[in-house]
Amino acid sequence: ALRLELADTSTVVLAEELPRMDLAEQALRFRLLPKDRALAVFEELDTVHQQELIDGLKTDTVRELLDSMEADDRAKLFDEMPAKVATRFQSQLSAADRRITAQLLGYEPESAGRIMTPDYVSLRASMTAAAAIERIRHLRERPRHLDVLPVTDGHRKLLGTVTLADLVSADPDTPVHELIADEHYQVSTDTDQEEAARLIQEANLIALSVVDHEERLVGLITWDDAMEILEAEDTEDAARAGAAEPLERPYLSAGVFMLARKRAVWLLILAVSASLTVTVLNYYETYLANVTVLAVFISLLTGTGGNSGSQASVTIIRAMAVGEVRFSDAFRITWRESRVGFLLGAMLAVVGGPVVGFVYGWDIGFIIAATLLVICTWSTFVGSLLPLLAKKVGIDPALVSAPMVSTLCDATGLLIYFSVAALVLGPALTG
Amino acid sequence: ALRLELADTSTVVLAEELPRMDLAEQALRFRLLPKDRALAVFEELDTVHQQELIDGLKTDTVRELLDSMEADDRAKLFDEMPAKVATRFQSQLSAADRRITAQLLGYEPESAGRIMTPDYVSLRASMTAAAAIERIRHLRERPRHLDVLPVTDGHRKLLGTVTLADLVSADPDTPVHELIADEHYQVSTDTDQEEAARLIQEANLIALSVVDHEERLVGLITWDDAMEILEAEDTEDAARAGAAEPLERPYLSAGVFMLARKRAVWLLILAVSASLTVTVLNYYETYLANVTVLAVFISLLTGTGGNSGSQASVTIIRAMAVGEVRFSDAFRITWRESRVGFLLGAMLAVVGGPVVGFVYGWDIGFIIAATLLVICTWSTFVGSLLPLLAKKVGIDPALVSAPMVSTLCDATGLLIYFSVAALVLGPALTG
Ligand SMILES: [Mg+2]
Ligand SMILES: [Mg+2]
Ligand SMILES: [Mg+2]
Ligand SMILES: [Mg+2]
Ligand SMILES: [Mg+2]
Ligand SMILES: [Mg+2]
Ligand SMILES: [Mg+2]
Ligand SMILES: [Mg+2]
Ligand SMILES: [Mg+2]
Ligand SMILES: [Mg+2]
Ligand SMILES: [Mg+2]
Ligand SMILES: [Mg+2]
Ligand SMILES: [Mg+2]
Repeated sequence: ALRLELADTSTVVLAEELPRMDLAEQALRFRLLPKDRALAVFEELDTVHQQELIDGLKTDTVRELLDSMEADDRAKLFDEMPAKVATRFQSQLSAADRRITAQLLGYEPESAGRIMTPDYVSLRASMTAAAAIERIRHLRERPRHLDVLPVTDGHRKLLGTVTLADLVSADPDTPVHELIADEHYQVSTDTDQEEAARLIQEANLIALSVVDHEERLVGLITWDDAMEILEAEDTEDAARAGAAEPLERPYLSAGVFMLARKRAVWLLILAVSASLTVTVLNYYETYLANVTVLAVFISLLTGTGGNSGSQASVTIIRAMAVGEVRFSDAFRITWRESRVGFLLGAMLAVVGGPVVGFVYGWDIGFIIAATLLVICTWSTFVGSLLPLLAKKVGIDPALVSAPMVSTLCDATGLLIYFSVAALVLGPALTG
Repeated sequence: ALRLELADTSTVVLAEELPRMDLAEQALRFRLLPKDRALAVFEELDTVHQQELIDGLKTDTVRELLDSMEADDRAKLFDEMPAKVATRFQSQLSAADRRITAQLLGYEPESAGRIMTPDYVSLRASMTAAAAIERIRHLRERPRHLDVLPVTDGHRKLLGTVTLADLVSADPDTPVHELIADEHYQVSTDTDQEEAARLIQEANLIALSVVDHEERLVGLITWDDAMEILEAEDTEDAARAGAAEPLERPYLSAGVFMLARKRAVWLLILAVSASLTVTVLNYYETYLANVTVLAVFISLLTGTGGNSGSQASVTIIRAMAVGEVRFSDAFRITWRESRVGFLLGAMLAVVGGPVVGFVYGWDIGFIIAATLLVICTWSTFVGSLLPLLAKKVGIDPALVSAPMVSTLCDATGLLIYFSVAALVLGPALTG
């Protein structure tokens, strides 16, 4: 009955439910799956969950799984295993698989070489379409991806790619070189994985060729892996937007201490930076003692500054991530954003000034209105400038988080507030 | 020379550079491109930029472009054009294209029906592989995507899909029904586009079949469109994380007023919510008058609360977006997060308490330490709970932005601060 129920459940659902069971049940269910389904489910699991499951399976089953996995997925799994375990499993692979795994793991982390699959069928330019199709039909081992076929010369030099669809649609006598796609894209093994994945998206490539430093073909990055990479990169950016380091594993598989560790450094840095506000408030303590009502608006004003700064920074960071803006647009962007901030500040001043004036007196109302205007303009400017500067100096712009922007805007916002107040109230405040 | 330079520039780069030129130059460059390149570049442009470019081109060129575009991209372009312009262009399409465009635009925005392409080749289950390949080779018009071929019965009922790779690799006499993929995924026309796109990613589908309410095949969603949708959905989430509404067009193509409009509502809502802090501070004004030094820590404490709350909310929102956690995990999540918050608060208390105590006296140091501990626990709890609650009541969890969390934590953080202070200082504060 369980076997039947499992047969009815899709791979996607199984891969989602399995890690939610305890280890014994995971192993039990997994063993009941037909081999090809088991492989599909295993490949869809996160590496953390793959490792958990492996512990509950028999050595033979594990060896079979590792044997049938895509080379890139296997390399990723070994990479994240404890070195000892990885070595043990690697020694059980066939010589060819062992060599391939070692080769992939030899490339830099997060590089194109690390995520490519060396498992492809390449064609010769002089073949006919019919001969190429015959070749594919009679492969001893069929690679996972056949939709894009690289064409090479006698020295493994990449000449271009042919799609399987073009090959099938062509007159059987057409030579392969006539079918090579007009536009050719390739990356080198040390290209950043995110850059390669974005190219796949922008050029709509089912697979992107990866070449070594001698322009020889060494692998393909496939669209499905590009999707996973972009998801991971966006997850990284999302975490950083909130001043947390990415977990690099599924949320529920991370323990409380790991979660705390991923946030502690930023929280501490931000708290230390926030002590700037203590210095500022300390400096103006006499102002506060003289006109206590000023203290009442501290959170509202600094909070609003942080908010408008965060709005600007998330907008610019995302525009940079998807390639819409570059550092050379910096002047244009910060000028636009300053005007946006001015408009938003003016709106808040018009709404807030009179209300505050009515309750707390017109001088206070004027101070609040003027401060809102200046704070919003300033924060929006800062929020748009910081990610651009980060990019310029080679820091991930996504590190300019909303909490970081608000923290910086808190201290500067207070300076603005007390300066405006001093201008308006004069000796009544400062005396 | 320009023509040669253009021939050397890739479609991706052209589609990136073109919108950065003025309209006359855009049209000039575009006209110099060979037809197939021109179409590729045009399709890669954002709809906003497609519309700009169209204005500079001759009617015939536009008609040809619209004629050759993928049906889904054309529908999207018409959808975002002013109704009058769209009607004029639509009337120039062939009857078949007009019908298809109207059909796609008839589905709900952001639904699977809206983004599918009705342009596919379907096979009959009883055909042999050889016959299927012959059929593909002799198509009068070749559809853009051939890598996945749906199989239907005589009544357009979907039976499953065959990949072109399987078709080519199979023995020519194999009947198509034997090649149907074991696992079958399909969505209906009214499935949410993000759900469909995530299914494509998770099941590694090159194309996903879309059926109507009678289970008849009506279109395919292709992997490249799934990537675009996930990018757009992540852009939406990124904007909301910073309390800005998504622009839905490239950043540089949005004017200053549009940028301000996308942020004004949230900024106002947050400012109004922040006036809660004014009420709280007003209520405790005597405390502040009695012990002025308390005002000095307001920004540090509320800022830190907002930061730890934001860290929790971005983590949970992303975990929900990629499908790692669900509402049923709510209890487990908030309990985990509360402990994370406690750990982080304890760390800050241990670091900050002594420093403050040394400078401002041990009673103040103790107040700050205790407040940090309570505020961090509370904010982290709130930051993790809010997105879950939003999901439960059918609001986009991504709307729980860092600014929203900090604003809420500001007011509650002040309550915590003054309560702790009252407990420690007693009548010296409250009297
Ligand atoms: Mg792969
Ligand atoms: Mg694309
Ligand atoms: Mg793009
Ligand atoms: Mg994969
Ligand atoms: Mg990266
Ligand atoms: Mg990044
Ligand atoms: Mg704040
Ligand atoms: Mg996938
Ligand atoms: Mg996933
Ligand atoms: Mg399409
Ligand atoms: Mg497209
Ligand atoms: Mg949506
Ligand atoms: Mg969403």
